[in-house]
Amino acid sequence: MYSKSDTICAISTPPGLGAIAIIRCSGPDALRIAGKIIQLPARKGKLQDQPANTLHFSEVYDGSQVIDQVMVSLFKSPHSYSGEDTVEISCHGSPYIQKRILELLVQSGARMATAGEFTMRAFLNGKLDLTQVEAVADLISSGSRASHRVAMHQMRGGFTGAIKKLRDKLLTFTSLVELELDFSEEDVEFADRSQLKALLDEITGVLKSLSNSFTLGNVINRGIPVAIVGKTNSGKSTLLNLLLREEKAIVSEIEGTTRDSIEDLISIRGIHFRLIDTAGLRHTEDAIEKLGIQRTWQKIGQASIVIQVLDTRSKPEEIVALGKKIKAAQGEDEKHRIIVLNKMDLVTADKLELILRDLKAVLGKNEILIPLSAKTGENLPLLEQALMDSCGIMATHENDVIITNVRHYEALENALQALKRATDGLESGLYGDLLSQDIREAIHYLGEITGEITNDEVLGNIFKNFCIGK
Amino acid sequence: MYSKSDTICAISTPPGLGAIAIIRCSGPDALRIAGKIIQLPARKGKLQDQPANTLHFSEVYDGSQVIDQVMVSLFKSPHSYSGEDTVEISCHGSPYIQKRILELLVQSGARMATAGEFTMRAFLNGKLDLTQVEAVADLISSGSRASHRVAMHQMRGGFTGAIKKLRDKLLTFTSLVELELDFSEEDVEFADRSQLKALLDEITGVLKSLSNSFTLGNVINRGIPVAIVGKTNSGKSTLLNLLLREEKAIVSEIEGTTRDSIEDLISIRGIHFRLIDTAGLRHTEDAIEKLGIQRTWQKIGQASIVIQVLDTRSKPEEIVALGKKIKAAQGEDEKHRIIVLNKMDLVTADKLELILRDLKAVLGKNEILIPLSAKTGENLPLLEQALMDSCGIMATHENDVIITNVRHYEALENALQALKRATDGLESGLYGDLLSQDIREAIHYLGEITGEITNDEVLGNIFKNFCIGK
Repeated sequence: MYSKSDTICAISTPPGLGAIAIIRCSGPDALRIAGKIIQLPARKGKLQDQPANTLHFSEVYDGSQVIDQVMVSLFKSPHSYSGEDTVEISCHGSPYIQKRILELLVQSGARMATAGEFTMRAFLNGKLDLTQVEAVADLISSGSRASHRVAMHQMRGGFTGAIKKLRDKLLTFTSLVELELDFSEEDVEFADRSQLKALLDEITGVLKSLSNSFTLGNVINRGIPVAIVGKTNSGKSTLLNLLLREEKAIVSEIEGTTRDSIEDLISIRGIHFRLIDTAGLRHTEDAIEKLGIQRTWQKIGQASIVIQVLDTRSKPEEIVALGKKIKAAQGEDEKHRIIVLNKMDLVTADKLELILRDLKAVLGKNEILIPLSAKTGENLPLLEQALMDSCGIMATHENDVIITNVRHYEALENALQALKRATDGLESGLYGDLLSQDIREAIHYLGEITGEITNDEVLGNIFKNFCIGK
Repeated sequence: MYSKSDTICAISTPPGLGAIAIIRCSGPDALRIAGKIIQLPARKGKLQDQPANTLHFSEVYDGSQVIDQVMVSLFKSPHSYSGEDTVEISCHGSPYIQKRILELLVQSGARMATAGEFTMRAFLNGKLDLTQVEAVADLISSGSRASHRVAMHQMRGGFTGAIKKLRDKLLTFTSLVELELDFSEEDVEFADRSQLKALLDEITGVLKSLSNSFTLGNVINRGIPVAIVGKTNSGKSTLLNLLLREEKAIVSEIEGTTRDSIEDLISIRGIHFRLIDTAGLRHTEDAIEKLGIQRTWQKIGQASIVIQVLDTRSKPEEIVALGKKIKAAQGEDEKHRIIVLNKMDLVTADKLELILRDLKAVLGKNEILIPLSAKTGENLPLLEQALMDSCGIMATHENDVIITNVRHYEALENALQALKRATDGLESGLYGDLLSQDIREAIHYLGEITGEITNDEVLGNIFKNFCIGK
């Protein structure tokens, strides 16, 4: 299915009219094939004979007819993106010219590349591991600073490094365990059981932390969910509109999100937040309203950050009581709560100070309290900074390694299960061969992440998300 | 208005998501500015210190944060498209990354380029003359083989060469005429009047031929107009549909044409033909139908090729009579007529042969006669070949130099008028200074074409048609 014996070509720039378009040709025969249609200035000689990493102004010919004046970039194996000989033709961005040059390459012996096939070759040639391949696709589709950062970190191999180290440690230990099997009659222990236990615990800890980061990685790509909660008439909707209005221009730029999401998505300094308006919280006997309030609590549980909106007439005891219920609904995870004291424009500065003092007295030391006017927009920057700070804590918490890919998450979870069996087996004095089997399984799943172990179906799923020409 | 003292940058690939995007930075400070954000592998040192025409895998940094892994192409003045130091950054085709890199370049001291500003710099630096500049824009927007060929020929300077030679000859002669003025009291003739007359005639001939080619150039860009003419019920509309149906896929690919034009545009091996259906020709007293027939004759006059449709029941005399009227309506120019004998499926092969023999007897030797069935599509390829042949004759007739630009056309016409005044003046023994004035005027207009003489308004008009990044 995934050959690298032939030479492939594709248009690598976005479709349509532009100043420049790039046509890429990669494979064992790339120089000869491209050389058939590319004519360098006479003094330079043949394309094949030029040194690697050089640029050449030249002309593309169809027989005796000039198709375009182009700039040719020459790469030689293994020093290219794909790891193969590669020619990149930078031509005028006319769709007609792009099509003609592509046709000429095909006529000269190249094949049209499938989606992501240049990157596939890079993987097959060991230039990229599988997480880096996936990062390339994520990078191209990343639309925010946070998702870009995660993808870039992954593409530079940060994620694989951690996984590979763990895998190597496990391999060493399992070899020792397996060595014992050869000497089974002598009842020796090459692999120190307490050291093995410590290693399994360490690895389990790291994998759990990686696996937990998936929730964050997922929200970074989709936008960090922020629930706005409060009593009816506390000014939740005005606050939501204020946040949305401020960012309307940026919101409308984001493509590919559904209409619902667009309306609720804001971007503060490159980080996406998904704003979730909720039904006002109050005691009610109305069945439908009860249902709405029930769903509010669900949304609080799903949100990473909750903005609790009060107004200057709210009673401190009630605020504390609601805060406790919100914390309970948020669950055990390290989630964030920002308390907004709305309608500050309705009281004098002196009165506001008194209210804030009373509130601070009943709230915990680390609670974030922001006086604000949703009506006038006063102190909105403070709220935005608080949102940024909250996600900043989240982002650094995981040592910058963040899982965004469901495939990685599943492999990590599978590896964790195998490690748990190994740990349990170790404690109950399991035979070496069964222990080794569980550890081998964990090693297998970790290898799946980096692509040391893979299959056509997995590769097919990964590359179907690529554009042609990458 | 048109400075080249600062450094400009722009995204040069089409907008949107793709595998690769190119960001171009050109100007006296391009290497230093790009060098601020681009970090080469440590062993290579600084970007500024690399040799020209080399490629460098590197990383783009925003402070300490990696924005992308990129391929950098380095060009040094004067050996670049713009003639200036130029850095082309080939990054991942994420709109987010493209935007960030552009922002970083601007923060580092570059300015966003205006439409066509890189090409403008190429012109200001003498890398391209004005006809070549215009050819770049034409080339990018060319959607057919013919329009591409004309633009490519022009971009390679074929057109300017002819103009420049003529202009130089005129300059020599007018200098001689002006020299006479210094010696006016001695009544000498440095410029041989008969030689001057011969030169003016020669130049007038060449310019006329160029100017005439404008009609062809124009039709090549818009599609060669083909009128389909015939009596009612001869099968004109069926033939039109047949031609259109065969090419539907290609027609629908052509963007930017109005709906009307799309429906009537076909492309045969890369040449566009604009099919014009006409009202059936017959004697009528109906006022409205008369108007329709009147317009048919107008369209025949405008078309480059007329397809006269007969059927197997048409009488030879009538065909000849109609043919004569068509030729008259086509005017003096070298236009083409193709006679299609439709409904060949309704007669036996023997009968068809007899009809063809009778027709050939009354038609001229060089008339193209094609038996065809619009209903079954039989012999359609013969008709398409005849259309191709007709425009082939047209295309080679002008020695491959074809004017497509209305600015060139106007300058040629102005030059021709000045030349005519000079010729007339020469014949009527005009004084040297008036003669010289007319010739100088012709020289001026020829200089306008190549851009040796220009002004901001002309340049503004030319560059407003460019995309940003070119």
